[in-house]
Amino acid sequence: MRIKRLQEFIEEKELDAALITAKENLFYFTGSSPVLGGYLVVAPDDVLFIVPELEYEEARETSKVPVDKFKTGKELYEKLKGFKLTKLGIEGKTSFSTVQSLKEKAGVEDFVVVDDVIKELRIIKTPEEIEVIKAACEIADMAMMAALEEISEGKREREIAAKMEYVMKMNGAEKTAFDTIIASGWRSALPHGVASDKRIEKGDLVVIDEGALYRHYHSDTTRTIVVGSPNEKQKDIYYAVLEAQRKGVEAARPGITAKELDTIVRDVIKEYGYGDYFIHSTGHGVGLQIHEWPRVSQQDETVLKPGMVITIEPGIYLPKFGGVRIEDTVVITENGARRLTKTERELI
Amino acid sequence: MRIKRLQEFIEEKELDAALITAKENLFYFTGSSPVLGGYLVVAPDDVLFIVPELEYEEARETSKVPVDKFKTGKELYEKLKGFKLTKLGIEGKTSFSTVQSLKEKAGVEDFVVVDDVIKELRIIKTPEEIEVIKAACEIADMAMMAALEEISEGKREREIAAKMEYVMKMNGAEKTAFDTIIASGWRSALPHGVASDKRIEKGDLVVIDEGALYRHYHSDTTRTIVVGSPNEKQKDIYYAVLEAQRKGVEAARPGITAKELDTIVRDVIKEYGYGDYFIHSTGHGVGLQIHEWPRVSQQDETVLKPGMVITIEPGIYLPKFGGVRIEDTVVITENGARRLTKTERELI
Repeated sequence: MRIKRLQEFIEEKELDAALITAKENLFYFTGSSPVLGGYLVVAPDDVLFIVPELEYEEARETSKVPVDKFKTGKELYEKLKGFKLTKLGIEGKTSFSTVQSLKEKAGVEDFVVVDDVIKELRIIKTPEEIEVIKAACEIADMAMMAALEEISEGKREREIAAKMEYVMKMNGAEKTAFDTIIASGWRSALPHGVASDKRIEKGDLVVIDEGALYRHYHSDTTRTIVVGSPNEKQKDIYYAVLEAQRKGVEAARPGITAKELDTIVRDVIKEYGYGDYFIHSTGHGVGLQIHEWPRVSQQDETVLKPGMVITIEPGIYLPKFGGVRIEDTVVITENGARRLTKTERELI
Repeated sequence: MRIKRLQEFIEEKELDAALITAKENLFYFTGSSPVLGGYLVVAPDDVLFIVPELEYEEARETSKVPVDKFKTGKELYEKLKGFKLTKLGIEGKTSFSTVQSLKEKAGVEDFVVVDDVIKELRIIKTPEEIEVIKAACEIADMAMMAALEEISEGKREREIAAKMEYVMKMNGAEKTAFDTIIASGWRSALPHGVASDKRIEKGDLVVIDEGALYRHYHSDTTRTIVVGSPNEKQKDIYYAVLEAQRKGVEAARPGITAKELDTIVRDVIKEYGYGDYFIHSTGHGVGLQIHEWPRVSQQDETVLKPGMVITIEPGIYLPKFGGVRIEDTVVITENGARRLTKTERELI
């Protein structure tokens, strides 16, 4: 089905084949994910997954498509040359070196980026994919629970992250979906405050942004707390973000565009007078990559459809003072958005 | 110094500038490592690090070179166009999409890969870099100690990895240097047996291959144990690998080539009759990337020099039976190789 759609696209664009090399796409199309990578050739009537010799046995066991192997780069490019690839579809992130080798050693003359058809496929998750993402989200919720229990005055951000990641792995995660963010005090005003050696202090806002990687799929959730009693300004920005996030989850449904959803969320923050401090987009797709399509931003007019999985994560960042972000991963269903991360949102 | 050498290379090759985008090289040349990436332009008489707006404040604090910012891709490419880049040096891993954008939006006509000069610089570590790698290796030794304590019959591989990674982070690591390998029983015959849900059984060979990422630098070490009493065949392959690894550490010194070192190690395994089962190269450079130059293999004739940091990691893999690998990260000094990972090697 997935490969068939790619083959249709190849025929529409009059390509000889597509060459897939990005790990997430190799897994998507073959079900196999060699540590050392591989080269998936998809021609109109032929499919072959060529992997390094060290990966051959494992790939043969896991791949849904025929597998071949290579020992040296020379052997690889000779095998590719055998496909007579004059006009080749590639991923936009294929490296310049690979493109040069394909020209020089495999006789490719023209390259066409095939990202659009891969996006079209991957943006709608199957029920099986949604189940795996849901499981990844459940693990993220367990890690969040651990964080909420562990955070206290005097502990280092990195120690909290260590405990969360331990909980993730003990519950079946392969690893974190991304570097765990624990941003306390002034650091909470940094949208990407990866856990540092800073000690958590009384009165700190603490932004906890984390996710688990489970069976190749990601999850993503954020909560913010205050250590001790929140002051008025902390409460003010917290409840602005909370209302924006809730309205976003309510508004996300089939038919609305990603841009419209971003506007709805952004407008709540603006009403509270913090529009200038919501300095990123509302969210992003989540799946085999932590950031994928659609982008819930002013630049993306994708119409939401059932099966899309996105984050909704407004934030307010006041330099030096601190920040608040609240985020869930949600799946779009016929009836609206269903939250896959479920930790309580009203935490101060 | 680093940038100056790159500028010399640009002049030698008659390039207008080099554009650096790989994260490890951005850190190497600027001292800054924006989560969202950045674009470092190095012209013969000019250097500018252009980062996304969200990263601007942090980059300004950490970068050793002047910093500018961009809000949209359009703005970025206009700024790049201002440098009049007709002939541009890039990294081999620069993406096809970026290359296309540079052609279409920044007027670049010719691209030249500058990887060789970056390799020439990064392959020799400064005393400061060696100190950081040493610290990363000390953390890896702590994690190995934790593994040796934790491994017992009935535990899952992933649980051991969870504990090791917790120890790493509690001791200052940013994260693991790579996905921790815990490969027990038949899985130990897989050179890349990332920790799975398999339970460890009595009599299993267990290969533990792990490293920590500390202040952007990697470490890499492997030990193998037997749960319970080893049988004769397990002992036989263990002592073959141990002798090969020891001889490798003794032989590694300035003047020998990477290929010669690989041969010395490989010959020991061959003498024991397991040559066909040592199915990878002897080692690789370690630094800002887990695999970098030189490659300790038959394909790399680099002459070892003081300041190089490499792994020495022979292994024997008997399909279905199991495998053994023993690995240290070592630094080449005037007097020979000094082990930076120091966990006891005689473990069965």
